Amino acid sequence: MTEFELIEKYFKREQPRCRFPADMGVGDDCALMSVPPGMQLATSCDTLVSGVHFEHGASAVDVASKAMCTNLSDLAAAGALPAWASVALTLPRPSRSWVRQFSNRLFALADAVQVQIIGGDTTRGPLAVTVQIFGMVEEGMSHTRGGAKVGDRIFVTGTLGGAALALRQMKRGDSPDSECLRRLRTPIPRLGIGRAIQGLATSCIDVSDGLNQDLTHILRRSGVGATVKLDAIPLPAASKKLGMTGLDLALYGGDDYELCFTAPESAAAKIAEIPAIMGQITCIGVVEEELGLRGASARKEIANLSNRGYQHFSSTEDVQL
Amino acid sequence: MTEFELIEKYFKREQPRCRFPADMGVGDDCALMSVPPGMQLATSCDTLVSGVHFEHGASAVDVASKAMCTNLSDLAAAGALPAWASVALTLPRPSRSWVRQFSNRLFALADAVQVQIIGGDTTRGPLAVTVQIFGMVEEGMSHTRGGAKVGDRIFVTGTLGGAALALRQMKRGDSPDSECLRRLRTPIPRLGIGRAIQGLATSCIDVSDGLNQDLTHILRRSGVGATVKLDAIPLPAASKKLGMTGLDLALYGGDDYELCFTAPESAAAKIAEIPAIMGQITCIGVVEEELGLRGASARKEIANLSNRGYQHFSSTEDVQL
Repeated sequence: MTEFELIEKYFKREQPRCRFPADMGVGDDCALMSVPPGMQLATSCDTLVSGVHFEHGASAVDVASKAMCTNLSDLAAAGALPAWASVALTLPRPSRSWVRQFSNRLFALADAVQVQIIGGDTTRGPLAVTVQIFGMVEEGMSHTRGGAKVGDRIFVTGTLGGAALALRQMKRGDSPDSECLRRLRTPIPRLGIGRAIQGLATSCIDVSDGLNQDLTHILRRSGVGATVKLDAIPLPAASKKLGMTGLDLALYGGDDYELCFTAPESAAAKIAEIPAIMGQITCIGVVEEELGLRGASARKEIANLSNRGYQHFSSTEDVQL
Repeated sequence: MTEFELIEKYFKREQPRCRFPADMGVGDDCALMSVPPGMQLATSCDTLVSGVHFEHGASAVDVASKAMCTNLSDLAAAGALPAWASVALTLPRPSRSWVRQFSNRLFALADAVQVQIIGGDTTRGPLAVTVQIFGMVEEGMSHTRGGAKVGDRIFVTGTLGGAALALRQMKRGDSPDSECLRRLRTPIPRLGIGRAIQGLATSCIDVSDGLNQDLTHILRRSGVGATVKLDAIPLPAASKKLGMTGLDLALYGGDDYELCFTAPESAAAKIAEIPAIMGQITCIGVVEEELGLRGASARKEIANLSNRGYQHFSSTEDVQL
């Protein structure tokens, strides 16, 4: 199977329900697209490498799911409407059944969010996928990492730490929690919430490297600090049983692809009205003038965190994360 | 060195001479860009894998050069002005000196064509680079593969087969021709010619897989055929000495990244006026109604091609390529 046959057979498809049909899609030197007046183009890319971002031997379906969903999550963080995707696939050898399963899943997910696959590349080499995702956002309405203000509330969507828990269970040879495994393999891009908080959120990021690191990106870029109520961080059911480990996975684990955003207290009522079907939204803290990220907890077992090997935060109420 | 440090240190740079400054570049979940009214966005991506698209142990400079130039070539074929690039780099381990050399070359080439690096991704894994290139083209003015008309002349830029010759020489352990090696490592994206033939060319493609295959893409998409004057195909000096092998490399070799385009005979005078500094342009054939690609030659040694192992074309004047 040549690259040309592979593209013709598996990557050129009718997609009648695209939100922003391209002027020219797959099959020429370039794809051509028009951006409607008043809209900015939002774009991002993520590479997933076999053995690094997914297990060697992962199914084609899981690879396609993760590649699309992690990229869509970046659009969610920007508050953008998904429009197009370009897919660069590197395969050790062109297996028809692998490519068929990969492309079927890719197009199923793309169709579900009205995204058009506009092009890409297929090459031979160690298994890896790079998706470049394109979205559209009203001029000046995108969330960035740099807008958090002192007094803003800090919110997160869904639950944190589940993907890291599933990964940890598998690495230990344990049977992973099924809900956490599903989240590890197919993160839920919070596209609806990303749009719903437009005009309300002052900053937003997707949590891919653990809450500690990603919230710190917001704080540094915004020139502010924060205190997080550690007890308020929403954990998946399987993590709640684990005590401190569950909190640890939420703070320092990765791959959750939930949103973390800030908004003024005056927006809290409107945020509470966002339909729960889009995902749970939890207030976990407040933005402060004092730089740095602090954790606060009423729970005794967190009082001695510094003694338990947590280098980044220490005692009870106003401790350095 | 973390991914974050690596991006901050090597991939966030001032680029004061960008043609279309992004509204937000490297460092957030998405880059944000505006497309001027009346322009279409043209985009393409190519992945280069170590050991497949460049030699294992290739220098960081060569990898950056090839990644940028092959992608810019796709914009040239579309007649687009280069605007932005997103760079997904997968590295076995983060070597500061490798990344410094790679990023220095990347930005030097980007600055040379007024392209802004707007984002990307850095991951750990087998060495590979995916560049997504973005350009701008006036609405409806892009060249595609599908517009060749019966009677059109067929043109190519530069010379063909040089990159394949250098590769062949190296594979045999011979010292490669220096000019051909330079072309293999740093193809010349024909951006100026791509723009100059706007409104003149009826179709265009960049020649990355050999003239035979790439011209066939144009012919099939356009629903036409062609005869190519094999003696007119421009060859590099080092290929001319090789007789049939030089022609073979031009027809079936790859990696030239020259443009092949069609234009009506009435445009020939204007095409001849395109300054030679942009690259030589040679008329090599004519588009015909009869489907298929035929080769014609006055040279006796081509008369018996079919007996020499050339499966795709055979005898003198009107033979099937």
